[in-house]
Amino acid sequence: MDFDLPFRMQHGFDALYGLELTEVQEGRIAARVTVRDELKQPAGLVHGGVYASIAESIASLGTQLGVAPRGLVATGLSNQTSFLRPITEGTIHAAAVAKHRGRTTWVWEVEITDDQGRLCVLTRMTVAAREPR
Amino acid sequence: MDFDLPFRMQHGFDALYGLELTEVQEGRIAARVTVRDELKQPAGLVHGGVYASIAESIASLGTQLGVAPRGLVATGLSNQTSFLRPITEGTIHAAAVAKHRGRTTWVWEVEITDDQGRLCVLTRMTVAAREPR
Amino acid sequence: MDFDLPFRMQHGFDALYGLELTEVQEGRIAARVTVRDELKQPAGLVHGGVYASIAESIASLGTQLGVAPRGLVATGLSNQTSFLRPITEGTIHAAAVAKHRGRTTWVWEVEITDDQGRLCVLTRMTVAAREPR
Amino acid sequence: MDFDLPFRMQHGFDALYGLELTEVQEGRIAARVTVRDELKQPAGLVHGGVYASIAESIASLGTQLGVAPRGLVATGLSNQTSFLRPITEGTIHAAAVAKHRGRTTWVWEVEITDDQGRLCVLTRMTVAAREPR
Repeated sequence: MDFDLPFRMQHGFDALYGLELTEVQEGRIAARVTVRDELKQPAGLVHGGVYASIAESIASLGTQLGVAPRGLVATGLSNQTSFLRPITEGTIHAAAVAKHRGRTTWVWEVEITDDQGRLCVLTRMTVAAREPR
Repeated sequence: MDFDLPFRMQHGFDALYGLELTEVQEGRIAARVTVRDELKQPAGLVHGGVYASIAESIASLGTQLGVAPRGLVATGLSNQTSFLRPITEGTIHAAAVAKHRGRTTWVWEVEITDDQGRLCVLTRMTVAAREPR
Repeated sequence: MDFDLPFRMQHGFDALYGLELTEVQEGRIAARVTVRDELKQPAGLVHGGVYASIAESIASLGTQLGVAPRGLVATGLSNQTSFLRPITEGTIHAAAVAKHRGRTTWVWEVEITDDQGRLCVLTRMTVAAREPR
Repeated sequence: MDFDLPFRMQHGFDALYGLELTEVQEGRIAARVTVRDELKQPAGLVHGGVYASIAESIASLGTQLGVAPRGLVATGLSNQTSFLRPITEGTIHAAAVAKHRGRTTWVWEVEITDDQGRLCVLTRMTVAAREPR
């Protein structure tokens, strides 16, 4: 990909919630999102959907980068997010690591931490690699 | 809750992506979101995180309404979303049904359909009912 | 399939834990297992792995029956089991319903109940339909 | 716990499928199971339920050991197993690591490998820590 890091996403939902890529490597993608009131649920915590969105984006991007050379496209199959500890301020830090790069599916584990480095969210993303329609 | 349906969420992340409640019953909550470019991922489909967010919000709200009379608060534990069919336009329709209302956890199945009524996304939400901190 | 129902599985792990098919229809499979001490965990409840095994078997069988006419084979991708209520005696009743029958993956919801008809376990099974190796 | 390692489980379902503990530490439990025909599904691979069972047992045991000093008991809430690569012979090796040790829930990641050290299965286990009934 042809951009400098950190890279703030410019389009679509990633731009809306504020995804910023900080590391893009083969099998490892990291990103961050600055907490703001617009990302919270009614109790004042970051909304669980924000974490799921970040994990979805970076695991899909990582798969897309990996399978594009074979002419395939990445499509999310499932997103399993566990909420361990709330975040209420500062920055959301996410790192996705590819645990399996199969012929038809890739599986990523995404860890999300707060500014103190505490593990707050775990996501397992399964992404299909398919022929483009 | 004291509002008329349909009710467009006014604050936080739910307002940002555009959640509108259409039905609020004991053990059943329905909602919808109008598709717009700001909700899409790079390939032009609705971003998977939008579906996860909708499911998270309505299952949490449903649990909150159910456990508030006991003085408890609802906190999401996990969100397991499977993507079956993409949505690219029109309206996202979601309906959450409580499958289990336990002493400490509630489990919801959320089905998301498109304007043609086709099942597009399944989410299982597990929500804890806890003493407020 | 050429057998009479109920059909007690004769081989492999399904025979070991005692799976008995009670209904085999397009998109719906039901089965049961008789509780015995050999199926329990240390606290005296049916072991969570027994439920996961039942769901795995019947969703895979249902997919296999559905995709075999196209020359494909069914392979489990993921098994997401939530434990709602313990079973300690009697019979474990399971019913799997196909929620999605896609070109490359099928998704099933499996509900497991006790002799009183109470919902005890929910499993979502994702099964791939692939060319045989 | 008062036993020598490796320790072959003597009772219930763990004995039936053949669970053998190989390492028991605070926040980390490892175990193995020898593959035999009785553990296979119809296509000749180890049955997915066997992996789910192993993960369930060792994550529950690890939680039980951790919360017993507080007078609590461990109860499985959910088991999310992803199948990456089949095992057909040799030994199934499993290692569970506690990613979160909360007041009310523990979350474990379990990795299952074959004799060649290849990652074959990933399980995330969520275990509740509760007052005994």
